[in-house]
Amino acid sequence: MTPLQRRLAVARGDEPADLVVRGGRVLSVFTREWLEADVAVVDGVVAGVGSYGGREVREAGGRYVVPGFIDAHMHLESVKLLVDELARLVLPLGTTAVVADPHEIANVLGSDGVHWLHDASAALPLEVFFMAPSCVPASVFESPRRPLALGDLEALMRRRRVLGLAEMMNFPGVIGGDPAELEKLELEGAEHVDGHAPGVLGASLQAYAAAGIRSDHEALTVEEGRERLRAGMWLLIREASMARNLRALLPLVSEYGPWRIAFCTDDRDPDDIADNGHVNGMVRDAVAAGIEPADALLMATLHPAEWHGLRTHGAVAPGYVADLLLLPDLESFVPDVVLKRGRTPEEIPRAEVPEWVRQTVRIAPVDAADLAAPVTGGAVRAIGLVEDQVVTEALVRDALVVDGRAVSDPGRDLVKLAVVERHLATGRLGIGFVSGSGLQKGALASTVAHDAHNLVVVGATDEDMTFAIARLAELGGGIVAVEGGRVVAECPLPVAGLLSDQPLEVVIAQSRACNEAAHGLGWRGATPFLTLAFLALSVIPSLKLTDRGLVDVDRFELVALEP
Amino acid sequence: MTPLQRRLAVARGDEPADLVVRGGRVLSVFTREWLEADVAVVDGVVAGVGSYGGREVREAGGRYVVPGFIDAHMHLESVKLLVDELARLVLPLGTTAVVADPHEIANVLGSDGVHWLHDASAALPLEVFFMAPSCVPASVFESPRRPLALGDLEALMRRRRVLGLAEMMNFPGVIGGDPAELEKLELEGAEHVDGHAPGVLGASLQAYAAAGIRSDHEALTVEEGRERLRAGMWLLIREASMARNLRALLPLVSEYGPWRIAFCTDDRDPDDIADNGHVNGMVRDAVAAGIEPADALLMATLHPAEWHGLRTHGAVAPGYVADLLLLPDLESFVPDVVLKRGRTPEEIPRAEVPEWVRQTVRIAPVDAADLAAPVTGGAVRAIGLVEDQVVTEALVRDALVVDGRAVSDPGRDLVKLAVVERHLATGRLGIGFVSGSGLQKGALASTVAHDAHNLVVVGATDEDMTFAIARLAELGGGIVAVEGGRVVAECPLPVAGLLSDQPLEVVIAQSRACNEAAHGLGWRGATPFLTLAFLALSVIPSLKLTDRGLVDVDRFELVALEP
Repeated sequence: MTPLQRRLAVARGDEPADLVVRGGRVLSVFTREWLEADVAVVDGVVAGVGSYGGREVREAGGRYVVPGFIDAHMHLESVKLLVDELARLVLPLGTTAVVADPHEIANVLGSDGVHWLHDASAALPLEVFFMAPSCVPASVFESPRRPLALGDLEALMRRRRVLGLAEMMNFPGVIGGDPAELEKLELEGAEHVDGHAPGVLGASLQAYAAAGIRSDHEALTVEEGRERLRAGMWLLIREASMARNLRALLPLVSEYGPWRIAFCTDDRDPDDIADNGHVNGMVRDAVAAGIEPADALLMATLHPAEWHGLRTHGAVAPGYVADLLLLPDLESFVPDVVLKRGRTPEEIPRAEVPEWVRQTVRIAPVDAADLAAPVTGGAVRAIGLVEDQVVTEALVRDALVVDGRAVSDPGRDLVKLAVVERHLATGRLGIGFVSGSGLQKGALASTVAHDAHNLVVVGATDEDMTFAIARLAELGGGIVAVEGGRVVAECPLPVAGLLSDQPLEVVIAQSRACNEAAHGLGWRGATPFLTLAFLALSVIPSLKLTDRGLVDVDRFELVALEP
Repeated sequence: MTPLQRRLAVARGDEPADLVVRGGRVLSVFTREWLEADVAVVDGVVAGVGSYGGREVREAGGRYVVPGFIDAHMHLESVKLLVDELARLVLPLGTTAVVADPHEIANVLGSDGVHWLHDASAALPLEVFFMAPSCVPASVFESPRRPLALGDLEALMRRRRVLGLAEMMNFPGVIGGDPAELEKLELEGAEHVDGHAPGVLGASLQAYAAAGIRSDHEALTVEEGRERLRAGMWLLIREASMARNLRALLPLVSEYGPWRIAFCTDDRDPDDIADNGHVNGMVRDAVAAGIEPADALLMATLHPAEWHGLRTHGAVAPGYVADLLLLPDLESFVPDVVLKRGRTPEEIPRAEVPEWVRQTVRIAPVDAADLAAPVTGGAVRAIGLVEDQVVTEALVRDALVVDGRAVSDPGRDLVKLAVVERHLATGRLGIGFVSGSGLQKGALASTVAHDAHNLVVVGATDEDMTFAIARLAELGGGIVAVEGGRVVAECPLPVAGLLSDQPLEVVIAQSRACNEAAHGLGWRGATPFLTLAFLALSVIPSLKLTDRGLVDVDRFELVALEP
């Protein structure tokens, strides 16, 4: 009997299932009903929903049986965990599949890094799908180790779990018809492509959609979301650690229904996931905000699968993979049973980390003089932080000037920021200022700095900034909070300068300690290091800093420190 | 400037569109709203919906702008027209694309016939997509010219406009795990496969869906439709000339919304289309029955496209093909402008008909003695007609017996039926009886006889039956009504014995005349020849007749004339 014949025999009731989940209330994602039925599983696939017997029976006892959650768009690396630890973190929360854009590691290690991550996630009970990183570098203003070429993308898109082209972040390039960007969209496999179009509206949005880009996770407002839906784009509602858009966009679900809307987490701190949940937290919050449970669940299950063309995921129905959650209620959305392909995920093997993914931080020595910001007047451009968002404001502020150099002045909440090239030890660095952080003393630094992941450092003194840079070079990457030439807290990230090799409890504790240390140094926002990491991302408005200098993202050009 | 660059320039408003449809109420199929906006078209594609200027402007004047209609499942051959004439018939009704299962011609001419139809429809303004015929023969009880082999299907599915595997009619084979059927489902390209599962419910339906078959157009009742939706199958609501399921299934749209529901016409007589419309008629009837116009339109536009993975069809939105209809109101759904890829369809070239598709009817001479039905008792199995449905009842009736032979007796509404093999002149024929036709005199015959398209003939006398057979052999195929050795009406179908080579007005008149002639001979149902044609289809319950004899479809076996 072939596996398909066996599946049909089980579906007919002629053979016992491997497992029957009996007596649950099963969500039909297709009709948005709760059906009182058994679910028969064979070879990891649902054979039938009805009345069934099996070799193993698990009593659902009236609990809710729903499909495993699918994260429609996320960056594995942001969680700072190796993939096996990531699986240990999110599987118990009901996330059974993610669609990852591995562009962080792609910036650090090129396509080799992506292939490694693909291989390292092959055998996990957390199913990891990928999109091929479309924008390495994210813009011409960023310096990854090397750009991903067309050939790299083609090779990636031939792999089995690579579904298409990842978020096309160079939206000005696409809209303006840049041949280099359009060429990527015409690759085989790139018919399926994720978008990234912060703030884009009107005719520009029509152009972006006309290029065949049919999703966006950067909508912040109802109006942005509405235009995207009308233009035929899927609305991926993002609830990242520092870009929480769920509440703002839920009115669209109330108005139009959950159609063509899916949930994603984009970038999540590990401690945020530990504290607030993962995709399940989005479902919980949506339901708490008044969305029907079935509708909220659709956006976390069937809809991510539909958007990504995952034809056998996202439903509890015959022929679908048996990724099943048993929920005790429709409030907390913390499953008390998680089945991946019909089995309780057991021992997850440790990911192997080859030596070449560890040796990635190369920095030309930086001393305080290298961080000097000579000015002719008193005014400087300053990056204005926007609480809980990845967008920033482009401000002009009067700096404290000492000996013809603009310096950090916590008194006026204006502190220095630097981005140091860290892949090829070129010594290239960019200098800017940040307004609104609250930082009073010490320095914070990180080799997680989107998207090129050069080293970003902010500080109240140049000395603490250079100390922080040196410490990260020593660690081979990580995040660190320093004060007065002393480490206050740190989280080493030796793998590509992005990932820890420690168990999740350690990483969560370290991440939490770093955030607390930053708050101890005066930082006001909830997510100091994520905020810092996004100050280097030159494709999100309005003012950002890379190793090449300040980037006016709205005009898409480098600008001088002095206005 | 590349075409994509040009499209983006138009979308941005930097270049004039080829055409702007100005001032309409544009349906957003994604939000189910009517937007007051212009539609900019360039190179046959929608560049943007907003405020646009163009080289040519067409004033919509407040009319409704909707996507062209897409028939989710149909058999081109049933309309009896060459594809160019079919386009002339349905384009003015707003059908701009169809997904055709060419299994009629496949039964007559093998894959050669399908490739010919594919080629013949390549340049039409009516876009014709195909599914590869999965079941030639439809069952082991039918005799096409030759079976389609796996290799034929593979070759077909490599063609550009072939989207997947057509309706898997051998549902007992699939459900039972027949290796020959499962092999087809595992072909490359067969991930997308249409279903055909009349009356299948419960565990059998779970098995059918578990095989990966995710649509069905055979649901007749709300309960059947509901089970299909819950099992993750698309519900293709069919409104064929003799199988009208719309009204019965619309309550599902009211209950669940239009999601995963699409419209299809399956088999339509040309005169039915002329009188009642095509897909547009389904939208009209749905709206008349109380469905919201936007919901009804979704089932005729976006949803067929979604089911078939036609990523750039079914919407008026950037990047979608500019198949646009201008509707004066939301009642009649007869467009007063139809644009295919942004242009009014003009002169449609005549399809060329090579000689080899004409020479298809080969019949060993049949005389009245060949039609004799010797019996030992008086009871015979009889096919019970069900008004306006393709299903039949399996009855037992007392026949009029003369000289030990059961004969037609219009007095008891029980007349003789025969199916004569017509591809290879084997002389093989099957004999049965029909109850409930009303036929009083003469005979009706057709070389359109699903799916093998052998010759089917029903008659009040053996003599008129043999005369009708001889006449069709003479014509090289067609349909004919005869009485007393004289043709009352006929519609020659010399192309494969399925299609006319005449203009649509002629075919419509002939088809109408044949149906009227049948009514003149006493036939009661609305669609005499379609009904006749389906009496030979051995995959629709309950009792059918092929050249091999009577088929009990429920038990899926041949049965004797005498019970």
